[in-house]
Amino acid sequence: MGEAVRLRLDVAYDGGGFSGWAAQPGRRTVQATLESALALILRIEHASLTVAGRTDAGVHARGQVCHVDVPSTALADGPLERLTYRLARLLPDDVRVRRVVLAPTGFDARFSACWRRYAYRVSDDPVGVDPLLRRTVLWWPRLLDVPLMNRAAEPLIGEHDFAAFCKQRKGATTIRTLREFTWTREADVVTARVVADAFCHNMVRSLVGCLLAVGEGRQGEEWPHLVLQAQARHPQVPVVAPHGLTLEEVGYPPDAELATRAARARAVRTSA
Amino acid sequence: MGEAVRLRLDVAYDGGGFSGWAAQPGRRTVQATLESALALILRIEHASLTVAGRTDAGVHARGQVCHVDVPSTALADGPLERLTYRLARLLPDDVRVRRVVLAPTGFDARFSACWRRYAYRVSDDPVGVDPLLRRTVLWWPRLLDVPLMNRAAEPLIGEHDFAAFCKQRKGATTIRTLREFTWTREADVVTARVVADAFCHNMVRSLVGCLLAVGEGRQGEEWPHLVLQAQARHPQVPVVAPHGLTLEEVGYPPDAELATRAARARAVRTSA
Repeated sequence: MGEAVRLRLDVAYDGGGFSGWAAQPGRRTVQATLESALALILRIEHASLTVAGRTDAGVHARGQVCHVDVPSTALADGPLERLTYRLARLLPDDVRVRRVVLAPTGFDARFSACWRRYAYRVSDDPVGVDPLLRRTVLWWPRLLDVPLMNRAAEPLIGEHDFAAFCKQRKGATTIRTLREFTWTREADVVTARVVADAFCHNMVRSLVGCLLAVGEGRQGEEWPHLVLQAQARHPQVPVVAPHGLTLEEVGYPPDAELATRAARARAVRTSA
Repeated sequence: MGEAVRLRLDVAYDGGGFSGWAAQPGRRTVQATLESALALILRIEHASLTVAGRTDAGVHARGQVCHVDVPSTALADGPLERLTYRLARLLPDDVRVRRVVLAPTGFDARFSACWRRYAYRVSDDPVGVDPLLRRTVLWWPRLLDVPLMNRAAEPLIGEHDFAAFCKQRKGATTIRTLREFTWTREADVVTARVVADAFCHNMVRSLVGCLLAVGEGRQGEEWPHLVLQAQARHPQVPVVAPHGLTLEEVGYPPDAELATRAARARAVRTSA
């Protein structure tokens, strides 16, 4: 493609109308929607996006990050700000590209990322979720004990094999570093804040399902720790519904460390 | 119906899927949805709701209030809390009855109300509304000057003939007391807080449309006041889209004044 330029895109979407991030034939996906808008505007045959967090069907994002390599000639048309506005007009309103910038040297949206932060929102109001929040908040009709959930989540922090909370993928490690897993309540809405270097498949939704069982009193405070130690999928740990989950933010190291970080992450993981 | 009991219901809904509050043949409306659920649960032929704010198609509510008179025998089945839970299970998730209580003597959801508070939300982010907020926030792609909008709104406060901002209904007065009309910004989301004793049809959305024209610089600061004084619909005042509008709260006087307030309001207005 001649000289290539890497762009960083910051993206937000309502996962409700998408079959997840990753392009799949015959399905409406975030990746395919963005790639075709980019190809159309930049007048290139195909734009290929690499993403920080491959979200499942129904999962939302506010702070998703991806990158794309395009021939520098495709950008001759004007400043990147103009590209952002053209994307805003062309894209459907359930996906927005909030920002487009030239990626710093060594930047890889997936492998340079140091951490991903997700939020999972639950309402334990016995009469149901506020209708205006129902697409991003799960209804849990039993009262949740938030301090208890925080105590029960604590032993999961740190580097562990999270196999018990992951859908296994062949050849992929399930060792992850969980940096934060805390719960807060605002009126009837209880929010989990979950930060890790990376997540394996279904991990956030399994962690949340496990802690909800504790919060409603169906399981004891020590249960999440026991599940973790067993290192195998536990039939009583539910994977909660996707619509309560939002990818809020992706963290990157200072520019000078981007390439090193990417090389290291690529070596230890086959799945981010 | 034998001895009748009046119930007060506090209701929230996502207006997106409804043709407004008021029942209309062949349309999905909030009133008809609630009335059929109540009739089914209470095993009565028909439940007839009276509402504080008849919202238009697409308008949302968090703090809507209505009342219904039911035969006391229909409540023999158990405490009102049980009725609330049964409604929660029966109703679709875009409408919730948050509370059911016995109405105090003299209570009328429409005529006892002292004030209605609406919020109208607009995003002036040039790249568009956060996809997770797009169903309750209007996209206004031009930057809004919030301090200017607050200055321009000020002369509208007080008792005036709001004919310029109302869709006329025969025989109905358009004199209203606007108690509050202020704008605040949180990041790209600008929110109007509009409080009045009552609103005539289209009033909030016309007031907002008028002030947006000022905020983006298309009209001068004095324009809203001039429009008000003209007392006739102005072709350049747009009625903004319904999805940015939410009925947030309805205020009632102390119980002892409910009946007096209702008698007075009924006398001066034919439309609330």
